[in-house]
Amino acid sequence: MFTPISYEDILYFKSIVNNRCFIDDESKFIYSKDETEDISILPEVVLKPETTEEIASIMRYCNKQKIAVTPSGARTGLSGGAIPLHNGVAMSMEKFNRILEIDEKNNQVITEPGVITQVLQDAVKEKGLFYPPDPASKGSCFIGGNVSENSGGPKAVKYGVTNEYVLNLEVVLPNGEIIWTGANVLKNATGYNLTQLITGSEGTLAVITKIVLKLIPHPTHDLLMLVPFYDAEKACEAVSEIFRAGITPSGLEFMERDALVWTQEFLNDTSIHVGEDHAAHLLIEVDGFNPDILMNDCAKITEVLEMFETDEILFADSKAQKDTLWKLRRSVGEAVKGTSIYKEEDTVVPRFELPTLLHHIKRIGTNYGFKSVCYGHAGDGNLHVNIIKGELSNTQWNDELPIAIRELFQEVVKLGGTISGEHGIGLVQKPYMDIAFSETSLNLMRSIKSVFDPNGILNPGKIF
Amino acid sequence: MFTPISYEDILYFKSIVNNRCFIDDESKFIYSKDETEDISILPEVVLKPETTEEIASIMRYCNKQKIAVTPSGARTGLSGGAIPLHNGVAMSMEKFNRILEIDEKNNQVITEPGVITQVLQDAVKEKGLFYPPDPASKGSCFIGGNVSENSGGPKAVKYGVTNEYVLNLEVVLPNGEIIWTGANVLKNATGYNLTQLITGSEGTLAVITKIVLKLIPHPTHDLLMLVPFYDAEKACEAVSEIFRAGITPSGLEFMERDALVWTQEFLNDTSIHVGEDHAAHLLIEVDGFNPDILMNDCAKITEVLEMFETDEILFADSKAQKDTLWKLRRSVGEAVKGTSIYKEEDTVVPRFELPTLLHHIKRIGTNYGFKSVCYGHAGDGNLHVNIIKGELSNTQWNDELPIAIRELFQEVVKLGGTISGEHGIGLVQKPYMDIAFSETSLNLMRSIKSVFDPNGILNPGKIF
Repeated sequence: MFTPISYEDILYFKSIVNNRCFIDDESKFIYSKDETEDISILPEVVLKPETTEEIASIMRYCNKQKIAVTPSGARTGLSGGAIPLHNGVAMSMEKFNRILEIDEKNNQVITEPGVITQVLQDAVKEKGLFYPPDPASKGSCFIGGNVSENSGGPKAVKYGVTNEYVLNLEVVLPNGEIIWTGANVLKNATGYNLTQLITGSEGTLAVITKIVLKLIPHPTHDLLMLVPFYDAEKACEAVSEIFRAGITPSGLEFMERDALVWTQEFLNDTSIHVGEDHAAHLLIEVDGFNPDILMNDCAKITEVLEMFETDEILFADSKAQKDTLWKLRRSVGEAVKGTSIYKEEDTVVPRFELPTLLHHIKRIGTNYGFKSVCYGHAGDGNLHVNIIKGELSNTQWNDELPIAIRELFQEVVKLGGTISGEHGIGLVQKPYMDIAFSETSLNLMRSIKSVFDPNGILNPGKIF
Repeated sequence: MFTPISYEDILYFKSIVNNRCFIDDESKFIYSKDETEDISILPEVVLKPETTEEIASIMRYCNKQKIAVTPSGARTGLSGGAIPLHNGVAMSMEKFNRILEIDEKNNQVITEPGVITQVLQDAVKEKGLFYPPDPASKGSCFIGGNVSENSGGPKAVKYGVTNEYVLNLEVVLPNGEIIWTGANVLKNATGYNLTQLITGSEGTLAVITKIVLKLIPHPTHDLLMLVPFYDAEKACEAVSEIFRAGITPSGLEFMERDALVWTQEFLNDTSIHVGEDHAAHLLIEVDGFNPDILMNDCAKITEVLEMFETDEILFADSKAQKDTLWKLRRSVGEAVKGTSIYKEEDTVVPRFELPTLLHHIKRIGTNYGFKSVCYGHAGDGNLHVNIIKGELSNTQWNDELPIAIRELFQEVVKLGGTISGEHGIGLVQKPYMDIAFSETSLNLMRSIKSVFDPNGILNPGKIF
């Protein structure tokens, strides 16, 4: 289907990107994988273009030659979006690492896609501005990857996910043409929303080369509390009660007991007490501009929590303790990964259905004999289900688990939810797309893919 | 290109919608126009389906017979989206007028598209919930039209436009197939974002039959002030200064002198004093849950305003006075329309560029000899430019004005803006789409249209 890369191709690539063309084994290995389980597929060549025009030349050439191109960010993805499934070119965006303009007059930033999300956040924070989406990997992931995957993170519950901040994109189409998708404005009723179509399209429609993001004033204060529950489903129930009390926390995270315990072991930090009888914790943050209001919000939250049986609530009383708590939460994924072979599912349901979702997860786990560790952005109804290999045989793991996952996703969709909240479909979830969408919808998506990429050379084999 | 409707077709339609099929002149006239200037094009038949299945049958039939179908809401649009340009079927959505479920557990509402926006807002407000987008026509427009046009309104400056609230849509495709575009969740990284693609697509891709909207807690307090400026460009400058002071008002509206004066005359209500030397006004609202914070916000705003020369600020001191001010603002469009033949342009630029935009509007007006009345959602950089026919000859109006508008839109795009902020392209702005988008982008959009509607029967002749 795709043309293997020849010596002539390499010569052409070198004529475009000079010495930023790599065919050594180490480079190929680095770009063969992301943070998705244990999948590694080697590209034939790694290119590190520096300009939009270089990307345009590469795409034009690969489109003509039918060479597969997989855009590659910081490779922190969890669905395999950056894995070069059909080999070909791994196109690293790491040289696109400049913040082009922090526009304080309009509360916007124009950035290249290879800027680390936290670097971007810190840079705009210096101007009192806030770019909220903060995936767990914010210290290493690229903003371009966030746009491609429509990333979330803890702050999404109050501030929304990435797509709510993307105003305009410069992209290179698979045929090498360069377009801007929209305009640098807060509202836009001009033609089809190409900006929103490309955001979250997992690098399958176009290569993003510039991003215009909306910014908001940075909140000046926040309060954080950790709430231990004796019953995990009750913790999930408490989540929607907090919203029903009129509070919108800036973080509302759920962690099952094991998530916290394993992470403490992983980080070698047991400063947070986890009681024998704690089944789950909620990590709740409120933020804003006025400490009194936040104290008041916390009071309302504790009032709601009194309806549930909880152990003593820990209020973080220093920046250091807040950092410890957030580090714990942000390290759960890595800790679980470090503890066992696992598979992570990124379920999302309407918030009130969380307890039912958790119930189904455990029920299906019992039926199929697997253990799971659940945690995630409960305020959004977004629960990460880490299925642990543990004692499961390879047959169980490879043959039976997909059946169990299918059963779980069917329950998720029945609850009004879907199969990925923020990780994307990529490689690992595509067998389940028929649960989320009818064949008609999938055909619409495939046809949209063909409009942008008639030869199917850009990030082939993803989503469908 | 399209098949004229025959007696057999009418018989078929009657077999589907019974007596909700109209071919009398009065019905045809009603559905021949919306609020867009003076354009009226008669449909051949008006259908008023009641169920998704009826619409599916109609679409399946019309697709096979190549009959043009134009979905029709409350016909309050300002770009001609509901005008049946190629005659055929006007498909009124007025029977889809039920709010199906206010889901207080998840802060969502499921509604049919023919519900009046304000009726929806009032219904959810009774539960303490808030659906913010509020176009000037909210008392008469349909929520389905708002989704189709991605409508804005004064609240958008703080709360965002319609698309930020649309979670999921049930739609009928032009071939009669029925799909849901997404899931009822706050975050979704599952496949291409069909929800956002169809939102704002002006009824050209699919017929919306159910809408799932996100709701938020309803603010309990608001404060409103009217600020008279001696210089209109200075009023525009003040807009971005307010945001730079860290305030996000829930409304920040600009009105040129004539907008206010004409509206007072139109409403026969001169209770608000407009000084001889007032060139423009800002109407500024803040809202939230705590009156002290709002007072504090107002204090900060007046501090910012002290940098500018303003006349005395009017603080609305009662619900009645707030209503009067908002009624004035909401009636400007109607008032201008009642005063002269006019053309309305829906320019939008990055907020800081507003004074420059206003300068260009007046400069181009002077060059081409036309007068304009400008008003709109200044906080969003969204300025409605009402060009007044006044003493202009028909030649000037029909032949020269389009050249002037083209010049204006070119300036808008140079400023980083675009040609419609919230009214859509429809019929009246499509000659200018080449200013906003490259031919490549337009071809992508046309191809997307073909994916959904290969026979081009749904709302033909709009956008491109």
